[in-house]
Amino acid sequence: MENIREYLTELCTKAREAQSILALSSDTKRNGALEAIATAVTERADEIISANSLDIEAAQASGMSAAMCDRLLLDKARIEKLAASVRKLKALADPLGKSEGWTRPNGLYIERVSVPLGNVAVIYEARPNVTVDVAAICIKSGNAAILRGGKEAYNTNLAIEKVLKDALEGVGLPHELVNLVHDVSREGSSTLMRLNGYIDVLIPRGGKGLISAVVENASVPVIETGAGNCHVYVDEYAELGKALDIIVNAKVSRPSVCNAAEKLIVHESIAEKFLPMVEKAMLENNVELRGDERVRSCVKAVPVSEDDLTREYNDYILSIYVVSDINAAITHINAYSTGHSEAIVTESSERAQEFLDRINSAAVYHNASTRFTDGEEFGFGAEIGISTQKLHARGPFALEGLTTIKYRIRGNGQVR
Amino acid sequence: MENIREYLTELCTKAREAQSILALSSDTKRNGALEAIATAVTERADEIISANSLDIEAAQASGMSAAMCDRLLLDKARIEKLAASVRKLKALADPLGKSEGWTRPNGLYIERVSVPLGNVAVIYEARPNVTVDVAAICIKSGNAAILRGGKEAYNTNLAIEKVLKDALEGVGLPHELVNLVHDVSREGSSTLMRLNGYIDVLIPRGGKGLISAVVENASVPVIETGAGNCHVYVDEYAELGKALDIIVNAKVSRPSVCNAAEKLIVHESIAEKFLPMVEKAMLENNVELRGDERVRSCVKAVPVSEDDLTREYNDYILSIYVVSDINAAITHINAYSTGHSEAIVTESSERAQEFLDRINSAAVYHNASTRFTDGEEFGFGAEIGISTQKLHARGPFALEGLTTIKYRIRGNGQVR
Repeated sequence: MENIREYLTELCTKAREAQSILALSSDTKRNGALEAIATAVTERADEIISANSLDIEAAQASGMSAAMCDRLLLDKARIEKLAASVRKLKALADPLGKSEGWTRPNGLYIERVSVPLGNVAVIYEARPNVTVDVAAICIKSGNAAILRGGKEAYNTNLAIEKVLKDALEGVGLPHELVNLVHDVSREGSSTLMRLNGYIDVLIPRGGKGLISAVVENASVPVIETGAGNCHVYVDEYAELGKALDIIVNAKVSRPSVCNAAEKLIVHESIAEKFLPMVEKAMLENNVELRGDERVRSCVKAVPVSEDDLTREYNDYILSIYVVSDINAAITHINAYSTGHSEAIVTESSERAQEFLDRINSAAVYHNASTRFTDGEEFGFGAEIGISTQKLHARGPFALEGLTTIKYRIRGNGQVR
Repeated sequence: MENIREYLTELCTKAREAQSILALSSDTKRNGALEAIATAVTERADEIISANSLDIEAAQASGMSAAMCDRLLLDKARIEKLAASVRKLKALADPLGKSEGWTRPNGLYIERVSVPLGNVAVIYEARPNVTVDVAAICIKSGNAAILRGGKEAYNTNLAIEKVLKDALEGVGLPHELVNLVHDVSREGSSTLMRLNGYIDVLIPRGGKGLISAVVENASVPVIETGAGNCHVYVDEYAELGKALDIIVNAKVSRPSVCNAAEKLIVHESIAEKFLPMVEKAMLENNVELRGDERVRSCVKAVPVSEDDLTREYNDYILSIYVVSDINAAITHINAYSTGHSEAIVTESSERAQEFLDRINSAAVYHNASTRFTDGEEFGFGAEIGISTQKLHARGPFALEGLTTIKYRIRGNGQVR
């Protein structure tokens, strides 16, 4: 594209105009748009699938891994699932217009009310379902969506954009509410990151490389998501069967996701008994064990390196450390975790409380798997990402995270 | 300083250790620290004032303006005032530990609780009172403060830091909770802006130059504050006497602050009657008028330029525009405002509602001066700044804006 900055500022300006209309619309109107979107993606599934097959062919030709190709794939069943999740969003409470008010001694009535953020930009990789998900969450929360999807999914995203825009126009809303960025160059993405005044929030969704590129380079407000170097600490007062179930689930049920456990920390007094149980279960699940010296005196494991401390494997690898007390476990986790999710397994409520209080992560568990850190599992009914920063949104966030507040103040001539 | 990055990471690491202790302390303990600070700054006022006189001398020698020197000055009365505002903070409700919880169908109990942000960094200019204010707000909200004050106030800030650190140690808290950055180079400040992982939020407090340097260059999370290109719109249904009081107050009561009005927008049907009233009042207050053509057909004014549209004068200057309807007024404001504070003067509740709904700024007023956008005036009892961004904090913010949430999840062995 010749002048990417000009293209993007124009796109964002039109999105802002469209958003100012959506911001004043009723929840019923916005839900009508969601219903239209759910219907349209189902009815026009063939159109989307045939565009998707172009992307799949190109991906296979370029030697993309089977796992990555699977992420890129859309079929009837997946499109049905997408439509179902849009309809689920419809049923959620309106996040806009929630207000509280108070009167000041001078008679001013101050009202604090929830309003949309405005232009929400998302940079993501080759998962075209994100295009529908994010568009729907933005509409429900009164925002315009600026979607910069991965170039591997470009044909699919173009087809989806068309379907979404038609659905919006069908219910009398401006199609500029949903915008795919028709430029998948690196320059396009870095221009977007620095479009202050045009983008109210930028959310990166994807791997570590994408997220750190955004955090490093963006000057617009960002919500950092995703990276999960999650720890499970098995305390000396743990019930070992429970602990084994939890670490196996946290590691093995879906190793590629951010709430999977990467590290196991074991209290020294139970290490000799517990580590062989872990070794057996992990071997059965083809998990590679890495361990410090004390671990390797109990079970077979690859020596851990310095690098392992902070790594998110997203793979069938588990590093294990033995500590002499809960304080060492907490210090280790607070030093090396990404602040996503950590768990303690213990039957001591005192130990649990200490862990819950002192661990400095978005989600801290007692006797449960880290895999529950998820918008659906928390009962939010949706999720736009899992924030690992502390500002604005932390942990799984969705509709509420896409709103801000404003103050409306009513007077009768007050001056100061 | 030789290795500024090393110096700052070490300072922040120690601050984090200290903060982890403060985070678990009771409100009573934190209030005790505030009381000790209030007492110490009063008792050791002479020490602070003598350090301040060094800064004042140097400032005068360098030709600093009288207004700037006044901002830099600390005397007994101002220190008393500082102590009083620290004691006022004490009386405010504890922002930490506020929680709500719910049980999921699988039995998990999820609790969302307010916790401190962690390391709060503030970059500010030559107002040494900020050093005490910010330190106290950070302590009350369980955070460590990393204070990068202006070099013109360095001696004063050093003296204040010593007093604050002694006060903290006197109540058994680590002195590393309050840290002045002992490096006032530009390099020091830009290193601080990119210290991801060490700084949880960075708040710039000062002029436009400082704020945009931070927004442009920071990779750590930022809360943008301050810039105020505030508008007053006088509608055709305005009571003109009320409108005059409001615009005069908004413009003249303190032109140097961010909630002062910079622009007046007048409905065409009342322009001929209202503008001469404005001209007379503004002349009496030595305010320079600038106006578009229609304004200049009613009163004497300097022609407005393109540049005036977005400028924050912070001075005795008022630009005036005539519009043909409320829609033009709203479009103008949303296009050129900094999103701080805007007001409508009208007796029509319908017009007021439209303005309150459609104006996209942190604070929107009906029949009141924009000068009320302030933590004290809103009833928050304190203020760390006025956020003009939409993420995390918007409008005046203080204690609550320095907290985040975390989830504590209690289970009995749940796996997914």
